[in-house]
Formats: sequence, C-alpha cells, structure tokens
Amino acid sequence: MFATRSFSLLCRRSAVSAWRNTSQSAAKKRLDISGIYPPIATPFTQSEDVDYQRLDDNLKKYSNLPFRGLVVQGSNGEYPYLTPEERVQVVKRVKQTLPEDQLLMAGSGCESTRATIQMSQQMADAGADCLLVVTPCFYRGRMDSRALINHYTKVADSSPVPVVLYSVPANTGLDLPVDAIIQLSQHPNIVGLKDSGGDISRIALVVQKTRSQGFQVLAGSAGFLMAAYAVGAVGGVCALANVLGQQVCDLAQLCVSGRWDEARELQYRLIEPNTAVTRQYGVPALKQAMEWFGYHGGVCRSPLQPLSKADLEQLQVKFSSNGWL
Amino acid sequence: MFATRSFSLLCRRSAVSAWRNTSQSAAKKRLDISGIYPPIATPFTQSEDVDYQRLDDNLKKYSNLPFRGLVVQGSNGEYPYLTPEERVQVVKRVKQTLPEDQLLMAGSGCESTRATIQMSQQMADAGADCLLVVTPCFYRGRMDSRALINHYTKVADSSPVPVVLYSVPANTGLDLPVDAIIQLSQHPNIVGLKDSGGDISRIALVVQKTRSQGFQVLAGSAGFLMAAYAVGAVGGVCALANVLGQQVCDLAQLCVSGRWDEARELQYRLIEPNTAVTRQYGVPALKQAMEWFGYHGGVCRSPLQPLSKADLEQLQVKFSSNGWL
Amino acid sequence: MFATRSFSLLCRRSAVSAWRNTSQSAAKKRLDISGIYPPIATPFTQSEDVDYQRLDDNLKKYSNLPFRGLVVQGSNGEYPYLTPEERVQVVKRVKQTLPEDQLLMAGSGCESTRATIQMSQQMADAGADCLLVVTPCFYRGRMDSRALINHYTKVADSSPVPVVLYSVPANTGLDLPVDAIIQLSQHPNIVGLKDSGGDISRIALVVQKTRSQGFQVLAGSAGFLMAAYAVGAVGGVCALANVLGQQVCDLAQLCVSGRWDEARELQYRLIEPNTAVTRQYGVPALKQAMEWFGYHGGVCRSPLQPLSKADLEQLQVKFSSNGWL
Amino acid sequence: MFATRSFSLLCRRSAVSAWRNTSQSAAKKRLDISGIYPPIATPFTQSEDVDYQRLDDNLKKYSNLPFRGLVVQGSNGEYPYLTPEERVQVVKRVKQTLPEDQLLMAGSGCESTRATIQMSQQMADAGADCLLVVTPCFYRGRMDSRALINHYTKVADSSPVPVVLYSVPANTGLDLPVDAIIQLSQHPNIVGLKDSGGDISRIALVVQKTRSQGFQVLAGSAGFLMAAYAVGAVGGVCALANVLGQQVCDLAQLCVSGRWDEARELQYRLIEPNTAVTRQYGVPALKQAMEWFGYHGGVCRSPLQPLSKADLEQLQVKFSSNGWL
Repeated sequence: MFATRSFSLLCRRSAVSAWRNTSQSAAKKRLDISGIYPPIATPFTQSEDVDYQRLDDNLKKYSNLPFRGLVVQGSNGEYPYLTPEERVQVVKRVKQTLPEDQLLMAGSGCESTRATIQMSQQMADAGADCLLVVTPCFYRGRMDSRALINHYTKVADSSPVPVVLYSVPANTGLDLPVDAIIQLSQHPNIVGLKDSGGDISRIALVVQKTRSQGFQVLAGSAGFLMAAYAVGAVGGVCALANVLGQQVCDLAQLCVSGRWDEARELQYRLIEPNTAVTRQYGVPALKQAMEWFGYHGGVCRSPLQPLSKADLEQLQVKFSSNGWL
Repeated sequence: MFATRSFSLLCRRSAVSAWRNTSQSAAKKRLDISGIYPPIATPFTQSEDVDYQRLDDNLKKYSNLPFRGLVVQGSNGEYPYLTPEERVQVVKRVKQTLPEDQLLMAGSGCESTRATIQMSQQMADAGADCLLVVTPCFYRGRMDSRALINHYTKVADSSPVPVVLYSVPANTGLDLPVDAIIQLSQHPNIVGLKDSGGDISRIALVVQKTRSQGFQVLAGSAGFLMAAYAVGAVGGVCALANVLGQQVCDLAQLCVSGRWDEARELQYRLIEPNTAVTRQYGVPALKQAMEWFGYHGGVCRSPLQPLSKADLEQLQVKFSSNGWL
Repeated sequence: MFATRSFSLLCRRSAVSAWRNTSQSAAKKRLDISGIYPPIATPFTQSEDVDYQRLDDNLKKYSNLPFRGLVVQGSNGEYPYLTPEERVQVVKRVKQTLPEDQLLMAGSGCESTRATIQMSQQMADAGADCLLVVTPCFYRGRMDSRALINHYTKVADSSPVPVVLYSVPANTGLDLPVDAIIQLSQHPNIVGLKDSGGDISRIALVVQKTRSQGFQVLAGSAGFLMAAYAVGAVGGVCALANVLGQQVCDLAQLCVSGRWDEARELQYRLIEPNTAVTRQYGVPALKQAMEWFGYHGGVCRSPLQPLSKADLEQLQVKFSSNGWL
Repeated sequence: MFATRSFSLLCRRSAVSAWRNTSQSAAKKRLDISGIYPPIATPFTQSEDVDYQRLDDNLKKYSNLPFRGLVVQGSNGEYPYLTPEERVQVVKRVKQTLPEDQLLMAGSGCESTRATIQMSQQMADAGADCLLVVTPCFYRGRMDSRALINHYTKVADSSPVPVVLYSVPANTGLDLPVDAIIQLSQHPNIVGLKDSGGDISRIALVVQKTRSQGFQVLAGSAGFLMAAYAVGAVGGVCALANVLGQQVCDLAQLCVSGRWDEARELQYRLIEPNTAVTRQYGVPALKQAMEWFGYHGGVCRSPLQPLSKADLEQLQVKFSSNGWL
C-alpha cells in the first residue's frame, strides 16, 4: 500500500479540507464527525448469541487503524435482529475498548418516535458520543417530510448527544427528502447525514444547502466515497472498512489532501469488493470477507443465510481480481 | 343493507364453498380459517399510551359482527410501534373479550427468526389461536426463497399453534415467492396465507398449487375481496372491516353463496373507501373513519401524523360518494 | 374440453351479461367490443421480413375460432419493430382474411399525437374497425393526466373509427391514471380500455365509474381474465389466445354464463402458460408455443432473441404440467 | 464568470487529462469524443412543424461556445416525436452550420436492430461524425446482455462511423448492464458510452474496466458532471448546456485542469437548474429556459404540454436562486 501508517494517522481528527473550514467559519460549533467509520459487524456464536469475546478481538484490531470512530448498530451490525437490551449492551462493550480519541456513533433508530427517544437516551448513557438515526420506514407511504421532520426534531430535542440523520433506501425503501434534510440541518443537535443512497447530485445539493450551518455529510458506502469527497462530503461510514480499513482511510486521506489521481486509482480497486459485501451479497459476504482479512465474521442471525458455494467463489474473485487477496 | 343479520351470521364457520370441500377431502385436517377478520387498530391515549379501555369498547362492538375472528397486531395495529411487552399485552386483552367461537389470529412476526419464535410462543401463551407471521424484510436483498423457507419452517416447527404466512409488499418491499409458499404449504403447522399484494393471478396460482394440501388463502384487502373469492380464496383480513364490518362480511357471504351479481355491486362501493383507509391515506385515515362509524380510532403513535385538512375532506368524500356517510 | 364448439360460438356477439345490459340502457350507443381477441403475432422470414403467407395461414386457422375479433399491432405483434408502412400493410392483409362478423382492432399508437392521428387515419382506411391506442411513454415523467387526456382527445376527435385506450405498464412503465380514464370515457368516440396492468381493484373501479357511459373494459391478459369478468370486464385481449384460442374463449363463455366453478378450474390451468408466454419469456416464447399448437410463430425481429435451451424446456413444462401438451 | 473565454476555448480538443493519456497509450486509436455537448432541442412552429430557421439561429449561437460538438436527436431533441425523414433532415441542417472542428453526434437508435442500422447509415450519409445509439427498450424484460450485445454489435459492424452507447434509464426503464458495456468496449467501432443514469460507482467501474481499450465515458447530465470527471469520465452530454453552455464548459475545464475547489463551487450552482430542466420538469422546461437565455425554445410536440404557471415559477426560482437569472 502506498499510504504509510504515519501518513494516514493524520486522517483521524484533521480531515477537514480548507474550503470547508472556511465555509463553516460562521456556523455554529458542532461536533466534528469528519473521517472514516466502519459500521461494525456483530459476531455471533454458532447458537446465534452475541459473541462479545470475538467482538473485543475485532475492536482491538480496529483500534490500530486511523478511523474517526466506529458505528455500532448500523445496517451491517444486524441491529434489527438484536433485542433492545442487546443493542445497548453491544454499545457498552464497544465503549470499553474504544480509543479515547475515537467517536462511538450508535444506531438508535427504531420505528416509533418514543422507542427511538428511549433508545437514544440508553445509548448515550452507555457511552455513545453521537447517534445515527435511521428513517422509520414500515409505513413508508406516510413517511413524508412532515412526519420525518417531526420525528427527528423530537428525537434531537431530547437526545443528550448529537444526532446524525441516516438515509438508506436499499433497506428502508425510503429516501429522506432533501427539503427535510435542509430544515433539520438547522437543528442545533443534528450535526450531519449518512447518505447510503449514493445519488451524487443529491449529496452535492445537500452539501450546498446545509454547509452554512456546519452540517456534515458522510458517504454511506466506499463505492462512491471519492466522488462524495469531490462534491463536499467530509467522510464515510463504509461497510468495506470492516475488511479493508486501512485502504478506505487511505482513500479518504488522498481525497482530503487533494491527491485526486492517486485517489482515483485506489477508488477503482475498491468498487467491486465494496459492491460484493453490500448490495450484491450483503452482510453474510461482509462477515465472510472479514474472516479472510483476520477478523471474526462468522454466522449471521437467521433468517440471513450463509452464502452459497457459487456466491462465495464470486465474492473471492471480486477481492482477488482487484489485488486484495 | 340487503343482507340481514341472521343471513350473514352463517358466514362465521360455514364459509367454505362446495368445490373447496371436495378438493380438500384428501388433505390433512387443518384449522379452518375461512371468513372475514378485521386487523384491529390499537387505540392510544393523547400521550400515546395504549388505551385498553377504548380497545375493550371496540371489541365489544366487533363481537356483534359475523367475523370469523380478529387479527391482532397486523400492519393496521401499528405493531412496529409497540414494544414486545405491549404486543403480548394487547393479545391478552383481546382474548378476554373475544367470543368463544371466534379466532384470535395474532401477528408475531419479527425481523429475526429467534425473536419471531419467542414472540410466537408468548402470543400462543396469551391466547392466540393462530399466528400471522409477516415476512422479515430489512435485508430484503437476501430474503430469497431459501432464507424465507428456512425462517418459516423454524417458526412453524416450534409454534404451539398454527401459522399463517403474511405477504404485504406495500410495507415490506418484498413479495413472498410463490415457490416458497408452495413448499411451505406442505408443513403441517402452516395453514394458510394472507396476501396483501393483490396480484390476482398470483393468488389464483397459489390456490391452484396448494389446495390439495388444504392450504387456505385470505385476501389481504377488501379492494380485491370478491375477485379473490372468485379465484378460490376463502376469506379476507380487511382493514376496512374495522369500519364497515357488516358490509365486508356481507360481501364475503354473497361470494360464498354464489350471488356474484349482488356481490359485484357491493364490491364496487367498497373500493374507494378501502383504498382511502389503506394505501392512499393509511392508518391515520382508518382511525379517523372508525370515529365516524362509532368506534374509537384516535391518534396514531408518532411518527405517523394526523391527516391534513385537505386529506380529511377527500377521505370523507370517498365514503359519502359511495353512500356510506 | 368441456365446452363444445356450437356452445362457444355464441360467445362472438352475444357476450354481454344481463347486469351490464341493464346498466348500459341509458348510455350512448357504442360499438360493442365485448369478447375475446388474440393480439396476433407477426410472422417473419429467416431474414426478418414480414412473412405474409404465414400470416395468412394463421389467420385462416383463427377464423375457425369464436373470437370477437383480432388485435393487429398489439405489443405481441412486435409493432415497435415494424415501419409505419409495414404496420398499415399488415392491417390490410388481415382485413382481407377476417370473417365479416369479426372486428379488426388495430394498434395505431405512436409517441407523438400527430403521428398517432395519422396512423389512425391510415389504419381506418386499411380496414380497421376500431383502434387500440397505447399510452405514449418515452417522456413518462411528463405523461400526467393532463397530457394523456389531451393526447387521447385529439386522437379520438379525428379518428374515423372508435378508439380503445391501452394501458400496458410492463412495457411502457406508465399506468393510464383512473381519473384520466373516467374523463375520457365520456368522449363519444372512445369506447373502452384494454388494461394489461392487472390490478383488479383498479379494473373494478374503472368499471364502476364508467359503466353509465357504456364504456367497456377488456382484460389485457388471460392470467386475470376470470377475475376481470367477475368484476365487470366484458372481454379480453389475451396473448395466450394465439396459442390456446378455443380455451380462452371457453373461459370467457363460462364467465359470461355464470358457470364460475367450471371457469375457475379452467382459469387455473391457463395461468402458468399465460405467464410463460407474456412477462416471463415474452414474445419469443409466444411464437415458440404457437409452433407447438399448429400455428406459424418463428423468429422475432432483432434485438429480440430466441429462447435459450433452458428457457425453452421451462416453457414446455408450463404447458405440459397443465395438461396442454 | 471566473473562467475567461480564451481559457475555456482550450477545452475543445485537448480535454484529456494526463492520467488518461497514459492509460490509453497502448489502446487502439479511437475518435476522441472528450468534451462537452449540448443535446440540442428541436424548435417547432406553433403548428408543431420543425422550425429550421429557429434551429439555425440556435446553432449560430452555439458555434461561439467551446463545445466539443453537438448531439442531435438525443432525448431532449424529442426524437421519438420526429418521423424518420425529419430525424435525418435535422441532422443535415445541423451539419451545414456546424464549425468544422466540432463533432456531430447523431442519435440513430430505434427499437429494432434493422431500423437502427438503416438510420445509422442515413445519418452518417447526412454528415454525422459518430452515432449515439440508445438501448432499445419496449420489450425491456427481454433486453438482457445477450440481446443488447447482439444489437450493438450488428449496428457497430455496419455503421460507417463510430458508435457511442447510450443508457438513459429514466426514459427507457433499462440500464445497459456493465458486463455488456465491457464486452462492447472491445468492438473497434464502439468508442464510448453516454451514461445518464448517474450511478457514480457504476460510472467509475465502467471506466476502470474499459480504459485499457481507450473507451470513453461521457456523463449524461450536468448534475453529476464534476463527480463523473473525478472518477474518470472525459466529458458530458448535458441538457443544461443548451441554456448555460459556457458554464458547463467552464465546469468541465476546471475538472480537466484539476481545479477541483473552483469546480465544486460551480457544480453546486448548476445542480438545481439542471434537475429542473431534466427529470423535474423535462423538455418543456428546457425549452422555456432557453428562451430566457436568448435561444429559441418554444413549444414541444404534443403530447408534451407547456408548463403550468406554478411549475414555471418554480423553474425560474431554480435559476434565479443560483444567480443565473
């Protein structure tokens, strides 16, 4: 890898490019969330209980990488498969191991506003530095801007720690509308957005319309990380960072330091592995790839199934053909 | 209404047409779930707590209608907004009031298999006669036939009471595949399907392929209830039955007794009100309409919002223009 | 087959059930389009020229079946692959062979209003009794009710023969809105709708809202033909009728005469073959199946490709497992 | 505007960045299509005839801008509304006015392969330098990689001038699959792709997989032009360039010369106007905006309707709030 350790360590807290600092100068002081986060997977035992020992092992390895922090209970953490108690317990466990200079961003989104408020409180108590709140979606036909603004405002009003909006249409079938984001960006306790939809025009538009507030946009996938930085995003929450954490941080650092030609070459090599562990083969593939790179992945909770043999081979090709295996 | 009370009372347990009895003769003996069910709404107080008193009031009124039973914790019950404890508690409360000859079909679906198994056990303990199990959907890209067959088989294997499959693509973004339904229809503890998608060719195909097993198909909406009966469904779980319960039962009875011309005229008048309280304006509209017809509807849990004034007027028109208000 | 020849011959012109005659009594006198139509395929030579001789052979065979008429240049006729001259020429050729008591319904839809008007005139001159006009769709984002009402009104105003609306979302990505249909049903030169979308609630709603005008709804597929009759449709334009023409007419006749139990059994056996020759494997499958049943199918124009060997086998199973091969 | 005229003139033929030249060094020599193209609108008279005089007026103005060339008969040219004769005639007319150093890229795509081949020949004869060939789409369920590779190969084999692939899912409901693009990139007469879908990971992947062939990717919209350049695209076919031609060229030049911070600021201001004249309000909005900026826009052919008053006002705001009006 062309990026050395010392080089990429810089990425932890300084990763705000010049133009953004300038544009934020007049804005309210907000928690700086810029940088790279893996949305960590939740290891399970063969009987599908949370395997806290293996979780600790992974966390120890991640602590050596220049992440801005960890996302706990993102989509890749199988949070919909955990009980409320498990969700909080995992956050506590991560907090014990996390380096002091890293952020713990905890996914506290539930379907109802009251459950989200309660979970947000519990996760803050458990040590979360900020909260990633997914759009409620079951009644998606009624989840218009009015409902979503109302939901997020109530959650942010009551949350002890800052809130990050989270739009992930592949899972929720719902894109948080831009007008809702713009209005919510004015809330003092809402600091940014994780956008996993990947519509790059939309990401640019959100940056344009919210940067005067100091609102920060994170790419929700390594597949469009470079393009997102190009249009003004300040970081990413990338499933692939569970597997190729150093490389995703390197890509971010190349973007932040304006070395776009090198960034482009690295970005190319990450697209296929990224697609494979996200929309193509999902969490089971992410966990399988983690095993190849020295982490504990293991089984998913049912109903998620292990990969078929054919899919497994295809997954391997996506890494090996890009020089990672 | 042309259907008299005594006439439609017949509909409770006898609603299996001749052709179906014949075709089922060789099949395993299964719980007869044929007939009409309202998927009951959950009343809340102004502070959004479950209002058990108002729930009791509604149940008392429903007990005078010729329903085959009640569905508790269907999509219209706002089950994703209830805690696991509330879900069980509501089932218990309904059981206390339900007439002995009616079925309590409880929605026990959760995202993970283990949570669904646990909830199914708890609901059976609380008095459920059978369980309505929605497709898990958050990782819909991985919810193929293999995963869903695995999920439902484990749930049905362990459930103390029969299981009804539940496909509701408008909410889940996922249609339970026909090949999975056909395979699952052979499980002795899986007795039927509630299909809310409304693809009438698909419903007919499922009936054709599963009737030799005694598998029973319920229409998931009053909008296509007559057509579903025409192609072999044996009942319906219809949101509109919360509001126009007698009329939905009348429609079912007309179909069962082969009075198709009368059925058609009644069906016409139910389509617009049905669409209005389901996909058009959703649960807030259903609860509003319940108020007009003497039931307690009231507020939804946030993030569901009350109807706007304009929507409210439109909703009223859909009922009045069809002669119901 | 349980339906005898003489029995089903009745279906040609008398196929309007009692309830409909009554409801139409006050309506304007319109061309009666009730009954079954195959949307005929266009045979090509190996060099992909229109094979008029083979077309004649097919027409001769179809003339022995109790169709209400033929649809020429529907989606299954590969009309988007024909030149304007070929489209008119095929209509002329069909007119020469068509029995006098059958209708020639010609597909005259083009993307622009002016081209549609011109093609409608030419097809009427070539002998079309009425015109099937598909929704323009390339700029589907702009094809709202206003645009579509404007389009159809201009076409119907100028057309020498009656117009049938045609909504086929699988090909166009566009559903003709119900409010547009209702308004257009009042045009004296618009006599009906072919609905290929198959949303049975929508079909029922359209019948309810337009029957006082004498507007007639045709099912666009044999897969939901019985359900469509059940809710008030008066016929069907069914790709499968190119292959199993007698059987589709039999199904229609059973519905019209209220023999629903027999209809249901026949409907079941037509669903899988129908799906196979339409949305599953498309026109190449329809043409292949035609060969099996004594018609000329042959190649499609490129870019439509012949079926793969695996698809071909699956296609055959869909017919044989339902007792047709 | 910060970009001076002389500066941006450089963009016409030299717009290939260093990294790309290097990677192409071993590739076959191909027509260089890098740069910016407006997909020109087709002016009509009030009676909806092609208004060649107004077309000439527009062309004269465009000739003063640093375009790489013009796209004639793209989606914004209302090509589906023109007769085959008109399509060729418009190409001829453009050729008469076009500066010698600019490319005429003509849209020759039709639904059938044979019509596309014929149209390609006619357009080449009329003066087209290369052809933009949209994916056939009416039978989109059958338009898999096999069919599309077959189609494009036949077209490219017979075309006298180079072919550019064209994927525009908003209009066609079909995304040209990446594996098909990769295979087609090896054809000596296929030089590039216009991608209007805007999935930036996909665009990057296509560049990665085809650049060794010298295959060139053009962004299909100004909304993601900067991001596309960032990941390796070499130009754009941008509806907005009909209105803000200089500005789109400026953006391209800033990207090519690595002035990303300036590019980003310009990109922001183009997103809302771009969305407004494309997916939001479509061709009628593009033509309206052209009027504001000194070009002839005028009416569209029916069924496209003029904007409503409310939409018109919104459109104006999208330009004025970004400082263009």
